[in-house]
Amino acid sequence: MKITTDSLEKQLANVQKRTAQLTDPKIEAAVREIIETVQAKGDAAVRDYTKKFDGVELADFKISEERIDAAYENIDPKTKEALEVARDNIISFHKKEVEYGFVDTEKAGVMRGQKVIPLASVGLYVPGGTAAYPSSVLMNAIPGKLAGVKRLVMVTPDPTEAVLAAAKIAGVDDIYQLGGAQAIAALAYGTETVPRVDKIFGPGNVYVATAKKMVFGQVAIDMIAGPSEIGIIADYSAKPKQIAADLLSQAEHDRLARPILVTNSMKLAGSVSNEVELQLQTLPREEIARESVEEQGFISVLPDLDQVFELMNAIAPEHLEIQLPNPTGYLSLVENAGSVFLGQYASEPLGDYVAGPNHILPTSGTARFSSPVGVYDFIKRTQFIQYSAAALEKEAQYVTTLARVEGLEGHARAIEAREAK
Amino acid sequence: MKITTDSLEKQLANVQKRTAQLTDPKIEAAVREIIETVQAKGDAAVRDYTKKFDGVELADFKISEERIDAAYENIDPKTKEALEVARDNIISFHKKEVEYGFVDTEKAGVMRGQKVIPLASVGLYVPGGTAAYPSSVLMNAIPGKLAGVKRLVMVTPDPTEAVLAAAKIAGVDDIYQLGGAQAIAALAYGTETVPRVDKIFGPGNVYVATAKKMVFGQVAIDMIAGPSEIGIIADYSAKPKQIAADLLSQAEHDRLARPILVTNSMKLAGSVSNEVELQLQTLPREEIARESVEEQGFISVLPDLDQVFELMNAIAPEHLEIQLPNPTGYLSLVENAGSVFLGQYASEPLGDYVAGPNHILPTSGTARFSSPVGVYDFIKRTQFIQYSAAALEKEAQYVTTLARVEGLEGHARAIEAREAK
Repeated sequence: MKITTDSLEKQLANVQKRTAQLTDPKIEAAVREIIETVQAKGDAAVRDYTKKFDGVELADFKISEERIDAAYENIDPKTKEALEVARDNIISFHKKEVEYGFVDTEKAGVMRGQKVIPLASVGLYVPGGTAAYPSSVLMNAIPGKLAGVKRLVMVTPDPTEAVLAAAKIAGVDDIYQLGGAQAIAALAYGTETVPRVDKIFGPGNVYVATAKKMVFGQVAIDMIAGPSEIGIIADYSAKPKQIAADLLSQAEHDRLARPILVTNSMKLAGSVSNEVELQLQTLPREEIARESVEEQGFISVLPDLDQVFELMNAIAPEHLEIQLPNPTGYLSLVENAGSVFLGQYASEPLGDYVAGPNHILPTSGTARFSSPVGVYDFIKRTQFIQYSAAALEKEAQYVTTLARVEGLEGHARAIEAREAK
Repeated sequence: MKITTDSLEKQLANVQKRTAQLTDPKIEAAVREIIETVQAKGDAAVRDYTKKFDGVELADFKISEERIDAAYENIDPKTKEALEVARDNIISFHKKEVEYGFVDTEKAGVMRGQKVIPLASVGLYVPGGTAAYPSSVLMNAIPGKLAGVKRLVMVTPDPTEAVLAAAKIAGVDDIYQLGGAQAIAALAYGTETVPRVDKIFGPGNVYVATAKKMVFGQVAIDMIAGPSEIGIIADYSAKPKQIAADLLSQAEHDRLARPILVTNSMKLAGSVSNEVELQLQTLPREEIARESVEEQGFISVLPDLDQVFELMNAIAPEHLEIQLPNPTGYLSLVENAGSVFLGQYASEPLGDYVAGPNHILPTSGTARFSSPVGVYDFIKRTQFIQYSAAALEKEAQYVTTLARVEGLEGHARAIEAREAK
């Protein structure tokens, strides 16, 4: 793994250069046609595209309850137990994210407040192939059900047994065998079979991501997911075998995954680099992990922990491990990170599966402005006010003054229509 | 104003037909060029576009503190007082939206939690011309400062005295004289003068909206604003003069604004329709308001309040007035609305200026899935976990089981690297 001892300034400049790509106009043109066709022709268009792109001819997209129940009965009991332990931990953590709004009656004659309302229906996209993770089904669906979403529908081009079982464990309401941009269009506009939803969650390939970005505004979307990242902050006291294993757990996801170690110890840097090479040699997904480590990964050595944290905050990693003595003391220095793993036993894969906090996290530096998926993603807020006649009388002059400053005479007159009575 | 007595089914079907437009590819191509040029050439490109589109040649985009202070000193004392009353009410309401995260130590040896972090920097777009509302500057900036945003920058092509004064009252940190897609690009990528921000707020024309949608992912954005709407629910007891005045207060905003009354009283429908015509005749912005009323507005009469609420929830209005006796009792029936005004004294313009809840609200039916601007829009969340050796030992088997089900051997080995020690 390459080790850099460049100055902080130089490394920060490199991080700043990283910018997100605008959508590719060619892909966008293709996706636009799919969206407009599904919007106009509904199920017929979805059926055509599914045949064309997925090579599947389906009489019915909807997966029957019997098939889902059978999948749940068939999975290995150890897998089922693990999924159920994960579910319980996800519930006990995410319950603390539930919000209730407020009522404020501090001013005489005035009631003001905020009401929290669950989204009525949401769609969850689960990609096919090796990226169909049952654990991600739990992480997306459970916060939605805790928020109170009544109809949570899942679409996937490739409904494996484990994914179907996870959907049942998580409380998904309906599952449709659909994928690609046509699935996103169906969820955004609705078809005869697929309900129109209020928000679409879940990662997908570039067509799915482009479709999500294009229908944004018609529906809400969660985020545009990029490659996985891990950033580890460690000093001389950390265990190279553990650090290397954690770096590789991200590297094995994807050739574009970024495993990063930032440390103040040249000795640790060297031993982690050696250990990564050793562990790579026996990893089943060696080829993918090696490309990630060699092309995307790096170890940065900086003279002190202040600089280490400054660089890591600029990187804004999806996962951040703090492998330092008394790690909780450093939590106050974390400004940008999707999820933080404190100390040697909080290995990142523990958070991927069982600990309970969400594993769907902002990638590619978007932790600067985005949050993990949570209950707050499945609600909307509405405000309310009520005024007495006396309370309005007291503040009416301020409303009419500002309305007239802004040239909105009708606004002022609406207030005066109360005074006249 | 046209009155419809169509069945609920027919009216619901009309509402469902309403879909958001995809971005126009021609506008998108023009905006793409602007974004890419600003990204590559920074200030020089911004200067060129400002000259080309706004006809302004600027040595320096940044507006000096002296000019802002002078604007604040020069505004009419009554306007200043009204803005400061509005500010205080906005603060007292939005303070209740501040969140603090949590720590959960319920499981032996496990600490899990959520940390709430303010966005480091945000940009606020204020359009020029008659849409440069000082009140909107307060509504956008105050929640940001309450959240703890350190650098809140404003861009506007047309810095009027009232807007500059409002920016000072709201605590805006820096103001740049910039507009259009080039301003959005400058905020998204940063230039020599304009800082790169984490999130962009504020409405604008179609170029601004398209640019915001295109840079989404590189930065966060608030929402894509559409025309203003008011939905009023009222029965026989409501006062037609007040209802008409409130409908017109929305209609005067924009030819595309939608004033809507849904009632169970044919008598009220008739008298509101007459009253709207009467009040229109003396309204300074009659021409705009008349087009809105006649082309976009309607009065719907339905047989009972259950149907009235069902239709209004499908419309999902930006502003919802409930002009019924005991209006708070109906709050539980509201599923989709940006902000709710209860009873005759809660006229919508009161909420626009002084009451305190936000006036930047989801438009065009997006209240289905969006919320008013609030403190929650200016923060991000991060999670953290810490496990003891014993706590990890207890759950390790579940992690390794699920990792291997998903074909991620490296994940399992990272956990086992702790057992080996």
